[in-house]
Amino acid sequence: MQPISGYGVAKVLDSENPEFKKGDLVWGMTGWEEYSLVTAPQLFKIQHTDVPLSYYTGILGMPGMTAYAGFYEVCSPKQGECVFISAASGAVGQLVGQFAKLLGCYVVGSAGSKDKIDLLKNKFGFDEAFNYKEEPDLNEALKRYFPEGIDIYFENVGGKMLDAVLLNMKIHGRIAVCGMISQYNLDRPEGVHNLMYLVTKRVRMEGFLVRDYYHLYPKFLEMIIPHIKEGKIVYVEDMAEGLESAPATLIGLFSGRNVGKQVVAVAPE
Amino acid sequence: MQPISGYGVAKVLDSENPEFKKGDLVWGMTGWEEYSLVTAPQLFKIQHTDVPLSYYTGILGMPGMTAYAGFYEVCSPKQGECVFISAASGAVGQLVGQFAKLLGCYVVGSAGSKDKIDLLKNKFGFDEAFNYKEEPDLNEALKRYFPEGIDIYFENVGGKMLDAVLLNMKIHGRIAVCGMISQYNLDRPEGVHNLMYLVTKRVRMEGFLVRDYYHLYPKFLEMIIPHIKEGKIVYVEDMAEGLESAPATLIGLFSGRNVGKQVVAVAPE
Repeated sequence: MQPISGYGVAKVLDSENPEFKKGDLVWGMTGWEEYSLVTAPQLFKIQHTDVPLSYYTGILGMPGMTAYAGFYEVCSPKQGECVFISAASGAVGQLVGQFAKLLGCYVVGSAGSKDKIDLLKNKFGFDEAFNYKEEPDLNEALKRYFPEGIDIYFENVGGKMLDAVLLNMKIHGRIAVCGMISQYNLDRPEGVHNLMYLVTKRVRMEGFLVRDYYHLYPKFLEMIIPHIKEGKIVYVEDMAEGLESAPATLIGLFSGRNVGKQVVAVAPE
Repeated sequence: MQPISGYGVAKVLDSENPEFKKGDLVWGMTGWEEYSLVTAPQLFKIQHTDVPLSYYTGILGMPGMTAYAGFYEVCSPKQGECVFISAASGAVGQLVGQFAKLLGCYVVGSAGSKDKIDLLKNKFGFDEAFNYKEEPDLNEALKRYFPEGIDIYFENVGGKMLDAVLLNMKIHGRIAVCGMISQYNLDRPEGVHNLMYLVTKRVRMEGFLVRDYYHLYPKFLEMIIPHIKEGKIVYVEDMAEGLESAPATLIGLFSGRNVGKQVVAVAPE
């Protein structure tokens, strides 16, 4: 039986592939298991080991590249613009917000608990953050934080939040669609009703997948590693211990139980 | 009382504005009336008078510029791509289809009557056309005409058609949102459920308004007038006589009664 696959960090124990040799540290698609046989590697070799290796499941791995590509390549951001990020405390959202702050944008995030809101405001340096579960009217909440409208929406949730955002976009705004986690477990996705605002506000809405952008990975590392070392970009993980905790942590993602990037430690470094 | 405004063609009878003089022919925003007092002109002077003047309400006016900007500037079209146009026999759609054919694309249009479908296939040179009212399953219809998917969707209708198109987009496809006429008279717009395909297919969906593109109008005329004179681009109008027919023709747009660009002749040239 095939194991469930996912992004992991691993050490090569043996290899017949000339690109990987014993002792190499790698990140990429591995199995939910302690030892993996990888026949068609989708793996990157880890060069920088002076950071926690778990970072390669997040800030230095797929979610980091997703944030980098989504923000810089899809959103066409400019200094001073107004940026809104949903699911903002997750592995991708927390980084997008920090990239936007580095560029001099006004940044607001939404998340689903007080702990997450505190994290956004006090750790990641967002200008504002709100708990969407405590907002009876998302449109009103967005008008409060964006009285002049939203230039960039980094979309992670879909559904009602997207409908409310469409009402509040500025002319020539951009929506980078990274995911729609509120919709994944519904039998039928919710309907989005306000797409006509794409026309009246001349908004570009663009879906993307990180796999189209890995050619930028070296450039991304060159940018982000100094920022991590200087503390200009911070990163929060929610570490669970042991492979046996993996199913529960996966389920927890959909109820928002994790705070920060959910990582499962299968074995110590 | 202000008259209802709309795009019209007119002759200047008198002017205190140095840009317009008696006898000039103009097109742009005028009133639903025989004589108009224009205090803040949004008007273009007509230079080419060797075509029917009514063309400046359509192919050489706002709808023509809409088709030109929407197709060439928003859709990023390439030779050989697969293009789908809804409300394809209207003033904008018929032109977008002909632009796409000139570029060597495969072009399919949808419309709501047999007459319109005949027009699309036999007059405007579309490769295929179908009557959406006779298709019980729009997804199946699109799969039939686009077995390998749609590169470009020129969106004029919204709602169920957009949902079906999202299921059939190719990777890196583009959707230019020009309008959503099926939604305008609803109390609440229909929900669109398949937006997650923007991510999996990495689709760019972009709303636009012609007003952002009028700087291209001279370039547009330079391109289209020779094509009209050589018969490489054709144009169909649905001409109603007399200002008194205007209300009924407006209402007719929403039930699709017009075939081609609806024009009301207020006075002969």
